[in-house]
Amino acid sequence: MIFGGKISVAKINENFVKMPASYLFAEIGRRVSEYEKNNPSADVIRLGIGDVTLPLPAACVEAMKKAADEMGRAETFRGYPPDYGYDFLREAIKKHDYEARGVQIEADEIFVSDGAKSDSSSIGELFSDDAVLAVCDPVYPVYVDSNAIAGRAGDYEGGKWSRIVYMPCRRENGFLPELPAVHVDMIYLCFPNNPLGVSIPKRELQKWVDFANDTGAVILYDSAYESFITEDDTVHSIFEIKGAETCAIEFRSFSKTAGFTGVRCAYTVIPKSLVRGGVSLHKMWSRRQSTKMNGVSYVTQRAAEAVYSEAGQREVKAHVEYYLENARIIREGLLSAGFEAYGGVNSPYVWMKTPDGVGSWEFFDALLEGCAVVGTPGAGFGAEGEGYFRLTSFGSRENTKRALSRIVDKYGR
Amino acid sequence: MIFGGKISVAKINENFVKMPASYLFAEIGRRVSEYEKNNPSADVIRLGIGDVTLPLPAACVEAMKKAADEMGRAETFRGYPPDYGYDFLREAIKKHDYEARGVQIEADEIFVSDGAKSDSSSIGELFSDDAVLAVCDPVYPVYVDSNAIAGRAGDYEGGKWSRIVYMPCRRENGFLPELPAVHVDMIYLCFPNNPLGVSIPKRELQKWVDFANDTGAVILYDSAYESFITEDDTVHSIFEIKGAETCAIEFRSFSKTAGFTGVRCAYTVIPKSLVRGGVSLHKMWSRRQSTKMNGVSYVTQRAAEAVYSEAGQREVKAHVEYYLENARIIREGLLSAGFEAYGGVNSPYVWMKTPDGVGSWEFFDALLEGCAVVGTPGAGFGAEGEGYFRLTSFGSRENTKRALSRIVDKYGR
Repeated sequence: MIFGGKISVAKINENFVKMPASYLFAEIGRRVSEYEKNNPSADVIRLGIGDVTLPLPAACVEAMKKAADEMGRAETFRGYPPDYGYDFLREAIKKHDYEARGVQIEADEIFVSDGAKSDSSSIGELFSDDAVLAVCDPVYPVYVDSNAIAGRAGDYEGGKWSRIVYMPCRRENGFLPELPAVHVDMIYLCFPNNPLGVSIPKRELQKWVDFANDTGAVILYDSAYESFITEDDTVHSIFEIKGAETCAIEFRSFSKTAGFTGVRCAYTVIPKSLVRGGVSLHKMWSRRQSTKMNGVSYVTQRAAEAVYSEAGQREVKAHVEYYLENARIIREGLLSAGFEAYGGVNSPYVWMKTPDGVGSWEFFDALLEGCAVVGTPGAGFGAEGEGYFRLTSFGSRENTKRALSRIVDKYGR
Repeated sequence: MIFGGKISVAKINENFVKMPASYLFAEIGRRVSEYEKNNPSADVIRLGIGDVTLPLPAACVEAMKKAADEMGRAETFRGYPPDYGYDFLREAIKKHDYEARGVQIEADEIFVSDGAKSDSSSIGELFSDDAVLAVCDPVYPVYVDSNAIAGRAGDYEGGKWSRIVYMPCRRENGFLPELPAVHVDMIYLCFPNNPLGVSIPKRELQKWVDFANDTGAVILYDSAYESFITEDDTVHSIFEIKGAETCAIEFRSFSKTAGFTGVRCAYTVIPKSLVRGGVSLHKMWSRRQSTKMNGVSYVTQRAAEAVYSEAGQREVKAHVEYYLENARIIREGLLSAGFEAYGGVNSPYVWMKTPDGVGSWEFFDALLEGCAVVGTPGAGFGAEGEGYFRLTSFGSRENTKRALSRIVDKYGR
């Protein structure tokens, strides 16, 4: 045998071994399955995972069918999509999501992809392995876990990663993070926030943009929930903030806006003026995407384009209003049952305080056992989420009302 | 200001800076655009990029339209797909692509994705940054570039990466690689090969599997072109080889099999028995996928399932035969024009020798200028590709014939 007769040490990515055993939603799925197995007649209502329930807008379905037909005819067949998205979609995004708000973004600064989850996790590839990241706590786990896989998080000790800068979001500061006191290279911000359901006032976001420009950090801005914004003092895009074009990357998605969770389409905006260490992040991402993916399905991109049609916009608006009304029902139901509840105004998420002394996984089990309602334990989003619980407004109206009446029955005073 | 009044060094991924300027097909696109601008009436025939031209099988179009309709009705709407693929598709793959060949692969060892390009590039995440990779030379650039982005390739010097083990594939050895003489951790193999168009005999592949099991290396086996295999002495799956289940990962795609380049669906097989350093690569990839992507469009997965229907199989078989006949026309045309030509029997690719003393980019320009035919310069696939040229059989019959008659007219003796 070669190599001195023994198998040499395997060069696997040891970061996987450091990671806690299971992904949040997998653990929830496991507990719910177990409950359902033990209670086969239980009528479980899921207000946990952020998955939509309303069907796709008719305009999108028609666009997909038309595109599928085109793919079936030689004259209109399309092979490999452009790596960064079809012009028809990039132009529609530019016009409706940016120009309409007075924001100057070029079509070729928009990268169409299969999901904001893919992009917000792969974006780490633009940074060195020893870049320092800052995340809110609680936080959407994908930002943390994807960087942990890349080795940027350090070691996992006592529920935290040693090299991540956690920015606590607490009741006392309106659930908004404070500027980090140490140097960071990457700052993940998500507004309207998942899981907190809160939005950030313009003036507050300006502070972050100024901070990033002053320190050389890059803001990774997840704006997947912007279509739920109802109030004026908050922006739909970080590029509405002065100076963001030299410090921010924005992630947007059709998942929650248009019910595309099962269709898979999103986009990422990287301005050409975003440069670090003399290198254009726009060029780096262009290279990354052309090297590591082959674009998004033509049929899917036609569906996304249809979101911007007149009929599409009407349907999408109705969807968002439907979910926002669910959010109101959840928030007011919780308040009437004596809980503290936040969010749900510019967001599909409601963030509630668990009863005093009840941990969030404990509350998860109690709600499942006592009400057959599934939510998401705040602790699953980080240490600061302990003692909180997330409910989502993506269920049906009927199920939302039934879930809340069960909660009020059990906990109401 | 914080941090001593100056912007600190940007922690970007410097590996991007090391990379040669442009991706092979981008450079080809640039030259063709320039030619077309200067010759607006030229009738350019593209036998360069490996993109298909036949429309989608009718069975797939119907499946997509049916699925789109389901997405438009509340009762049948589907949200987030399962991270690893719908059971209906994983079971169909298991049955048709493995069981039918006597290979024992479980449905949960199959990971559905948006493309073999995504998977074969992201698979590097399972390995440490200092893992050593071996690639054939010439090679599909994605294996190299994706690992270069991750820092595994070292530095780019004189057309080669310092830490990559290149395995020359030359005429003298039938264009097959030889076992590396140094230790490697990852071995990319692609058979039938892109760009060489050659397949590997069973006995030869057994040597690689034995080598990997002996040394602890992992074979990353790209089998995207298996449906073009016409001869008996070559396997469709590496898992037909004894012992592969403890040393190999296989990438498969619907792109070339069923014309899915614009639809985006593929799958990766990682056996549970593939373990390195005591860690299951199946578990690592499961974690990677659930952390960094959100599954593949329901509509797309239904289209892929339809590939396995009786009508789908009939259509797919006809497509493959059509392209193989093009390959025969290319190969025989080249031979009759006095060129050396290889491949094209178990593969959609024909690998030809350029005229003596003519470099492959030089031949690219000559073929474009002289025949208005676009191919791919062998040098774009690696140093050993210099002096060779790739033609693909994915054009229409008519264009293939016209292209070859132009080549025979110009070069034929």
